[in-house]
Amino acid sequence: MKDTSHTRPKLEDVARLAGVSKTTVSRVLNNRGYLSEKTIQKVNDAMAALGYQPNIIARQLFQQKTYLVGLIFPTVNNPFFAQLEAEMERLLYKRGYKVLMGNSQNDPDKEEDYLKQLLTHQVDGLIVGAHNQGLEYSHHNLPIVSIDRIMNDDIPVVSSDNFQGGKLATERLLKRGCRYVVHTNGPLNLNTPAQQRRLAYESVMEAHGLKPITYHIDFNISQEEKREVLRCIFEEHPLVDGIFASNDTDAAILLSLAREYNREVPRDLKIIGYDGADMTQLLLPHLSTIQQPINQMAKTAVNLLENRMNGKVSQSNTHILPVKLLDNGTC
Amino acid sequence: MKDTSHTRPKLEDVARLAGVSKTTVSRVLNNRGYLSEKTIQKVNDAMAALGYQPNIIARQLFQQKTYLVGLIFPTVNNPFFAQLEAEMERLLYKRGYKVLMGNSQNDPDKEEDYLKQLLTHQVDGLIVGAHNQGLEYSHHNLPIVSIDRIMNDDIPVVSSDNFQGGKLATERLLKRGCRYVVHTNGPLNLNTPAQQRRLAYESVMEAHGLKPITYHIDFNISQEEKREVLRCIFEEHPLVDGIFASNDTDAAILLSLAREYNREVPRDLKIIGYDGADMTQLLLPHLSTIQQPINQMAKTAVNLLENRMNGKVSQSNTHILPVKLLDNGTC
Repeated sequence: MKDTSHTRPKLEDVARLAGVSKTTVSRVLNNRGYLSEKTIQKVNDAMAALGYQPNIIARQLFQQKTYLVGLIFPTVNNPFFAQLEAEMERLLYKRGYKVLMGNSQNDPDKEEDYLKQLLTHQVDGLIVGAHNQGLEYSHHNLPIVSIDRIMNDDIPVVSSDNFQGGKLATERLLKRGCRYVVHTNGPLNLNTPAQQRRLAYESVMEAHGLKPITYHIDFNISQEEKREVLRCIFEEHPLVDGIFASNDTDAAILLSLAREYNREVPRDLKIIGYDGADMTQLLLPHLSTIQQPINQMAKTAVNLLENRMNGKVSQSNTHILPVKLLDNGTC
Repeated sequence: MKDTSHTRPKLEDVARLAGVSKTTVSRVLNNRGYLSEKTIQKVNDAMAALGYQPNIIARQLFQQKTYLVGLIFPTVNNPFFAQLEAEMERLLYKRGYKVLMGNSQNDPDKEEDYLKQLLTHQVDGLIVGAHNQGLEYSHHNLPIVSIDRIMNDDIPVVSSDNFQGGKLATERLLKRGCRYVVHTNGPLNLNTPAQQRRLAYESVMEAHGLKPITYHIDFNISQEEKREVLRCIFEEHPLVDGIFASNDTDAAILLSLAREYNREVPRDLKIIGYDGADMTQLLLPHLSTIQQPINQMAKTAVNLLENRMNGKVSQSNTHILPVKLLDNGTC
C-alpha cells in the first residue's frame, strides 16, 4: 500500500497551509486578478514549506498561457496607432490581459524577431498592423487578428470602409471645385485595405473625366524624407488645386509645404486627410479629414482575438467599419 | 550505490539529445535571442523525451527574470508619452528586453493593479511616469526608475530642467510685452518635478512686480472638461495677454479657445506650451513651446534601469536634462 503522506503535495495542500482558497493559490500561480503582497507571500511560503512543484507554471509556459497579448504596429508615436493601442490596452486589461508593445518601426528584421519570439513563447495572441512585406504569419497556431493588413485567409482583418472614405474625400474635393487632384498613398506593392482609398479616388476621378495622379510613399522613410517626396507634388504639379492625403500626418506636412509655396489653404489649394484621431483633431482642428472609427476598430479586433483565444473562430474574415467626413476648413 | 541512469536529466542531456548547445537550450527556456521554429521544436521534443523538468523556467518565474520591462504612464495616446514610450521600447528592445505597456489612465486602481501584478511576477523592472497619488512604490525589491515623478529616495527621477523651462517661458512672454500672464499646471498637491515650472513662473513674475496666477488642472478629467476649466481663464481674466501652459495639449485647447473669444494669437494673446514632442511639432508647428529632450530622457531612464537590473546602483538620484525654447509664432 502506498504511503499517501509521501505523495506529491497538491494545490489543496498549499491552500490549506496558506489558509486561502484553491482559487487564490491558482491566481497566485497564474498572476491573475488582484492579490495582496501578504497573500502572495503566504502562498509562496506554503509552496516552499511543502516542496510544492508548481506544475501550473510549467503548464502555463508550455501551453503558452501567459495572459499577454502582443501588439505589433509600426510605431506608437503616431496619433492613429497611439489611440488604437491605448484603446486596445484598455479593453484587454478589462478582460485580464496585459499588453506587450512591439513597434516594428517598419524594420522587417525587428518585426520578424518580435513575431518569432512572441509566437513561440510569450503571448496568447497577437494583434498586428505592421506593414513589412514577406513575413510569414500563417504557419503558426497562435490566434492572430490584423488591423488594416491583409495577411492570409485564416487571419481576420479589421479595417474601416476605405473605399467609401476615398470616395467621400475625392467627391468632396471635386464638389469644392477642384479639377487637378493628387492623391498620396502607401507603396503600390503592399497589400493593405488602404489601397481601396486609391481605387475609390481613381474611380471617382475617371467618372468625372479627370486624370488620377497618385504618389506612392514608402513607409520606411523619415518625416524629413517624406517632406521631400511630398514637395515633388508642388514642383511637378504647380497647378494642383486639391490633395487627398492618405493620412493626417502627410496632410500636416502638405499644409506646411503649402505655406512654403505660398498656396493659401483652402483658397488656392484644398486638402483632405485621413484618420481623424482624437489627438490630431485636438492639435490640428482645422484639418478636413476622413475619420476612421478607431475605438470601434480596437473593440472589434479585441473581440475577435478573444474569441480566437477561446477557441471560437468567427464566421466572417473581413470586418469593415464605417467612416465619416469631418468638414473642418482645409477643403 | 546510486543508479545514475535514473537521476534527473540535466540541461546537457537535453542539449545532447537535441543536437544543440547548452546555450541554445537555455535560450529556448529563457525566450532569449533569435531561435528558429525548428530549434525550439527539437529542444522541446528532447525535453519531453527525457522528462526534463525545466527548473530554469520555475527559477525564472520565482526570480522574476522575464526580460520584460513594464512602462506605467498615464496614456500612450499623447504625443509626449507616445514618443517617450516608443523611444524606450526601441532602446530596451536593442538590449534584449520587451516592453509591457500599462496605461494607468489616471485611474489609481488600475495603476495599483498594474504595479502589484507586475512587481510580484511579470517584469524585471519598471519605468514609471504615472501620476496617481498615494501608491506605495517603495517596499518592493524590483528595480524602478521614474520619469517626472518623485516617488521616494531610492527611486531615481529623470526629468528635464523644469525650473529653467518655466523661467525661459515666462521671461519670453514678458519680453514680448505681456504683463497679465496666467500659468496652467497640474494639481498643487502632486509632487512632480513639473511643479518647478510653476515655481520658476512665480519667481520671474514676482521679480517683475507682477502677480502670478496659476490654474491647477486635475489629470483625471477629459479633454472636454479640461476645455471648460481653461475657459475660466478667458472668463475670469479678460485682460490676460500671455499664457504659459504646462503642456502642449493644453496650449492647443487654449489656441482653440482664443479663436472662440476672438483673441488673435500672438497679437492679442501670446501662448507658450511645454513638451515639444516631434508629433506636436509636425501637427502644430506654429506653437511656441519649451522642448523637453524626450529621446534623451528615454535613454537616461533605460540606462539607469539597466544598471539597476544588473545590480549597479547609480550615484545620483536626480537626472535633470536641459530644455530648449522653440520660438515658433504663438508668442
